[in-house]
Amino acid sequence: MKRRLRMAMVGGGRDAFIGAVHRMAAGLDGRIDLVAGALSSTPEKSLASGRDLLLPDDRNYPTFEELIDGETGRDDGADFVSIVTPNHMHFPVAERALRAGLHVVCDKPMTLDVREAEQLVETVETSGLLFALTHNYTGYPMVKEARERVARGDLGRIRKVVVEYPQGWLAEDLESTGQKQANWRTDPARSGAAGCMGDIGTHAANLAEYITGLPIEELCADLTTFVPGRQLDDDGNVLIRFEGGARGVLYASQVSIDEENALAIRVYGERGGLEWHQEEPNTLQLKWPDRPRETMRTSGQGVAEITAYNTRLPAGHPEGFLEAFANIYRNFADCLIARLEGVEPPEAARDFPTVHDGARGMRFIDAVTRSTRDDQSKWTRL
Amino acid sequence: MKRRLRMAMVGGGRDAFIGAVHRMAAGLDGRIDLVAGALSSTPEKSLASGRDLLLPDDRNYPTFEELIDGETGRDDGADFVSIVTPNHMHFPVAERALRAGLHVVCDKPMTLDVREAEQLVETVETSGLLFALTHNYTGYPMVKEARERVARGDLGRIRKVVVEYPQGWLAEDLESTGQKQANWRTDPARSGAAGCMGDIGTHAANLAEYITGLPIEELCADLTTFVPGRQLDDDGNVLIRFEGGARGVLYASQVSIDEENALAIRVYGERGGLEWHQEEPNTLQLKWPDRPRETMRTSGQGVAEITAYNTRLPAGHPEGFLEAFANIYRNFADCLIARLEGVEPPEAARDFPTVHDGARGMRFIDAVTRSTRDDQSKWTRL
Amino acid sequence: MKRRLRMAMVGGGRDAFIGAVHRMAAGLDGRIDLVAGALSSTPEKSLASGRDLLLPDDRNYPTFEELIDGETGRDDGADFVSIVTPNHMHFPVAERALRAGLHVVCDKPMTLDVREAEQLVETVETSGLLFALTHNYTGYPMVKEARERVARGDLGRIRKVVVEYPQGWLAEDLESTGQKQANWRTDPARSGAAGCMGDIGTHAANLAEYITGLPIEELCADLTTFVPGRQLDDDGNVLIRFEGGARGVLYASQVSIDEENALAIRVYGERGGLEWHQEEPNTLQLKWPDRPRETMRTSGQGVAEITAYNTRLPAGHPEGFLEAFANIYRNFADCLIARLEGVEPPEAARDFPTVHDGARGMRFIDAVTRSTRDDQSKWTRL
Amino acid sequence: MKRRLRMAMVGGGRDAFIGAVHRMAAGLDGRIDLVAGALSSTPEKSLASGRDLLLPDDRNYPTFEELIDGETGRDDGADFVSIVTPNHMHFPVAERALRAGLHVVCDKPMTLDVREAEQLVETVETSGLLFALTHNYTGYPMVKEARERVARGDLGRIRKVVVEYPQGWLAEDLESTGQKQANWRTDPARSGAAGCMGDIGTHAANLAEYITGLPIEELCADLTTFVPGRQLDDDGNVLIRFEGGARGVLYASQVSIDEENALAIRVYGERGGLEWHQEEPNTLQLKWPDRPRETMRTSGQGVAEITAYNTRLPAGHPEGFLEAFANIYRNFADCLIARLEGVEPPEAARDFPTVHDGARGMRFIDAVTRSTRDDQSKWTRL
Repeated sequence: MKRRLRMAMVGGGRDAFIGAVHRMAAGLDGRIDLVAGALSSTPEKSLASGRDLLLPDDRNYPTFEELIDGETGRDDGADFVSIVTPNHMHFPVAERALRAGLHVVCDKPMTLDVREAEQLVETVETSGLLFALTHNYTGYPMVKEARERVARGDLGRIRKVVVEYPQGWLAEDLESTGQKQANWRTDPARSGAAGCMGDIGTHAANLAEYITGLPIEELCADLTTFVPGRQLDDDGNVLIRFEGGARGVLYASQVSIDEENALAIRVYGERGGLEWHQEEPNTLQLKWPDRPRETMRTSGQGVAEITAYNTRLPAGHPEGFLEAFANIYRNFADCLIARLEGVEPPEAARDFPTVHDGARGMRFIDAVTRSTRDDQSKWTRL
Repeated sequence: MKRRLRMAMVGGGRDAFIGAVHRMAAGLDGRIDLVAGALSSTPEKSLASGRDLLLPDDRNYPTFEELIDGETGRDDGADFVSIVTPNHMHFPVAERALRAGLHVVCDKPMTLDVREAEQLVETVETSGLLFALTHNYTGYPMVKEARERVARGDLGRIRKVVVEYPQGWLAEDLESTGQKQANWRTDPARSGAAGCMGDIGTHAANLAEYITGLPIEELCADLTTFVPGRQLDDDGNVLIRFEGGARGVLYASQVSIDEENALAIRVYGERGGLEWHQEEPNTLQLKWPDRPRETMRTSGQGVAEITAYNTRLPAGHPEGFLEAFANIYRNFADCLIARLEGVEPPEAARDFPTVHDGARGMRFIDAVTRSTRDDQSKWTRL
Repeated sequence: MKRRLRMAMVGGGRDAFIGAVHRMAAGLDGRIDLVAGALSSTPEKSLASGRDLLLPDDRNYPTFEELIDGETGRDDGADFVSIVTPNHMHFPVAERALRAGLHVVCDKPMTLDVREAEQLVETVETSGLLFALTHNYTGYPMVKEARERVARGDLGRIRKVVVEYPQGWLAEDLESTGQKQANWRTDPARSGAAGCMGDIGTHAANLAEYITGLPIEELCADLTTFVPGRQLDDDGNVLIRFEGGARGVLYASQVSIDEENALAIRVYGERGGLEWHQEEPNTLQLKWPDRPRETMRTSGQGVAEITAYNTRLPAGHPEGFLEAFANIYRNFADCLIARLEGVEPPEAARDFPTVHDGARGMRFIDAVTRSTRDDQSKWTRL
Repeated sequence: MKRRLRMAMVGGGRDAFIGAVHRMAAGLDGRIDLVAGALSSTPEKSLASGRDLLLPDDRNYPTFEELIDGETGRDDGADFVSIVTPNHMHFPVAERALRAGLHVVCDKPMTLDVREAEQLVETVETSGLLFALTHNYTGYPMVKEARERVARGDLGRIRKVVVEYPQGWLAEDLESTGQKQANWRTDPARSGAAGCMGDIGTHAANLAEYITGLPIEELCADLTTFVPGRQLDDDGNVLIRFEGGARGVLYASQVSIDEENALAIRVYGERGGLEWHQEEPNTLQLKWPDRPRETMRTSGQGVAEITAYNTRLPAGHPEGFLEAFANIYRNFADCLIARLEGVEPPEAARDFPTVHDGARGMRFIDAVTRSTRDDQSKWTRL
């Protein structure tokens, strides 16, 4: 490492959850310093939030537009912008940052709809800048091990995928209490066309595609809103078919009481299977037709190179959500540092979600909402 | 207990799996003696199989017809017949036994199709005889605890059900090797219209209905045959909707490598949730919105009366598949003994699956196969 | 199998726990019929208990002496006696039965003290009769797999053993409430010199020796009585050293609240390790220095012949406490049937605990109580 | 937060493991910047290691003495020194830093022997400076929850403690291969009088005392060196007695093959029990005599204030080893910032291990080595 990167953040002020996560993740590996922010939706809250973080006043901006103008106008300006606002602001901020020449890290879902997503793909491609989407669950070492095992052919041709993402925190009408997280996530204007499916169903779909390397080709969905008065789905069950013939089921829920964040996946091929649970992320089960089940462990016996590359600690020293999130930032940072130094990044560092993953997520949201229209469930292509 | 019961068995000879299970389950509680058999599909194998079990020659019958005639013709004849043949023989044996005045225990799925099932319901009702169907997974104490918790309203109105039943033993073309279990289960003439869905999907559907007390109203299925040359489905994913508005997903698979017999269910209501896994059957997780998750245990703290009634050992002494299976026989036997003694059976003993459960299973098979026709997936009523 | 065996039972009447376990275990495999009993400590309770079980009046004996006389005096008399009384009666009943020519199955701990144990060893050897001790935990398939793995050398020379047996049911002064199980187990006159260590510590010691094949050579114990007024230890921690240099720790407790019956063992050698938990008995973890941990499963991939021999069901159909217990009876029965038929038993059937295991148990109790005298802890040889 | 802290580091250069951990932990919460280092035992390696971390040349010191002199001689000098060397250097560096007026964070075990530890206690007390010892496992939220539960009396008077710490990485003679971590840890000159017991046994003892609030009063140990040629113990089993009458067992091992870092503790009192495993750190089991077992979760239902204070993420977002480690630094930093600002720190921030915990660790090492002398095992007071 020859230099550190300067990060500006949009969103993530007081009351936000994901902003602090991004800051801890970005800072973990000593490559990135937060130098500027437009941290909230009102100038007052933005400034107060920036002072909490000891941002200097001249880089503590009231609006994202001023941040982009300010940072691109100084020699020691930010190298990239991290966008951690509610969903509806991802697109305008990302567009403006990219057009101003700033690289971008963006939270997911990437935009409000497919149209915006396609526009953003074009902007990223035209600009030639780096764009990382924080589909953070793919940052776990054991998820990378899973992907590698499938890619190597250890499981044979994939037949069946079961991916699930139950949560319980929206089992009651939390949004009416004014809770900020619940509030914007259940509001179509800020969240988009899907609620639960947009917030966490996209993670499940992304995880399935990342591990199997197979695109979801079509799906047949049954979305439900269980909490009276809620405007968006809070639960959904989806039949899925992948390119190449694999089939499966994906479900997500935010009304599954006492489920915390229980993303999990099982994949079965012609020669083996695997299973991973986000809440015990350092374990990967491997299943074989002719020998006992194996338990791979982060930093443990026999892990792949790409897995070790995304691991910081020896076996038995649990790595968690922040470390996985940090892998996205670390890999993005190593690619960006390399670019700024005019060298090639390590091959392994290229492994982070991009604008294309973001666009697939938007197509997934679009397909599940179209499939379930009028309470029917129709096979719908992504 | 004032007397023991005499059991005749049809099917379950050499090479059979489930026959031995029925014999161990029937014998476990000292209420039932095997006294006669027609144990296989050919007279020679029947007689040899009976000798293995030390059946006297005069009650070791070459055919089921002779068994029924013989046993009803003697004073010390069998009280009931246990039918453990491949599926296609359930109906003819049960019909004949009932018409001859013998009570019946029958393996599942109950018949080859809905028509046979409806006929059998009528015969049972006309005869007034006892008929138990061995949907054995409902015999587990913790399944009964789950049912009781839902019935009491602890979980509130049910919203979401996830029930799954993956196995891996048919991941390859085992039937072509001559393996007997694989052979008949993949043959439509002996197994019926569904493969995996008939063999184990019916258990999953029955478990969901038993625990929630809610009938499945309609379903939308995607069945697949992954192993080339196989005639019946070996994997299936099903969206389900229950009467009263609960929704969910049911899946079953026999190509999920290294899954043994991983039936599991999660149920979520407006006020709580629960989770049970057949492979660790003595544990039931209870999930609450406002306090830590609780782990109920067979014979442990706070179990319901009906649960204790179906438990034989103190906490920490694991009960398994046979004990659950034996609960079906024990409860059936207590009802039959009571009837023979002219008394009322204990209320708790009435809790075993009946001909109506069998008929629902056949309607489930019928609906999943209709729903998935032409590789479409249509909402189909049971 | 050419014939069934006739069993007489001493002890195990109303209010007893272990008697019903022995009857279910003995009957599970269709080899053994209960034909006679002296089921309780008073003639009245004995007779009432026998009627519960439908024993004919002429074989429902008021005392064990009459049972032994009666059964040896008839042509169709019992082949063996099963002794399921409190500990202090094991020796007198076993002695008298053996001297009368009856084979014996006896619960553990075998006698009240080492002197009785040595006498019983002599009587068994002189008589030439079969004697099985129900150290039932060694009947689990995965325990046999563990033993086989060590015997084959897969783990290399053994270094470390951790065996633990916590229970919580005596955390309060249950014996003063009149609870029968607590009552005799905490009474030195009926239980022997040790409480918790005799009741369950002996199981732990037996399990460690059975799996490793190594005798405990010396131990250093710290026994405690936590519940005021109790006469015997209810908790104990023991340093152990095995012949050949392995070391370890054994602990047992009956005051560990909410532990049910949590017997567990871990064994580590120079080349590998293993772990087994009684409450999830169908799983055996295998640990290696150079490859991922393996999970062996009852009836699963790669189990040894001796393991399969002691298994009744396919993988994923949980076998439990009764099935393990039944393996002791089944193996004993196969040896006894073979002897009565004048043939050699299957080699695998010889695998059940004998009078020598019982004697080792008594030496273990003797050593822990001597080691801990005056609240000191001295290395003491068995 | 009004300001950030400046940290200098001694040790932790290339090839070191724990240095990187300290840097990530110190940086996680945005309160601490690394500004200076003397990172290795030779000037060349020190300088190279500092350049890896982008330290400016004038604060990249060849020796710790120069670092202390340099940093205390500048206005923007380090606020504290973090000592992450092998054990034998902890004392000299800490002494010199404290005498120069620098606050200290120090790895454990604190010193080479009790004498040094007592000296250091005196120096810390005389200086009035802050001193944190990184007994990092006490930083886990669920460990704090456990401590709180005991302190509140939920478990009643404590009776039994089982604490274990098996690892497998030294099952072979790794030190002879030149592996740096193995090398110094098995060398008495750099590691101290104990090997495994010093390295990880001290963590186990500290965890037991932290959670129960009870000092270990005496112990009876059996330490072993299994790997031929090794100079220090690589395995040990210890009987322990706490002040107030609780008893238990502590064991640690570095030859338990395929155990990664399996620190775990169970505590039982008169009214309840608890269980925690470091490798699944976000779960705490609570055990009750009269209701089902409860599973507390980091950020989950019903956690104590002190637990929430040490948690960064919502439930189901796993926190790991680094986050726990970071809690030590965060709490230390908040106390130090408060002091520098002249205000009182938050009460909850005072909860980090101090020089007194370090001294107890040295007494534990001293006691286990004295207890086990000549392969005897004698009760020895701490």
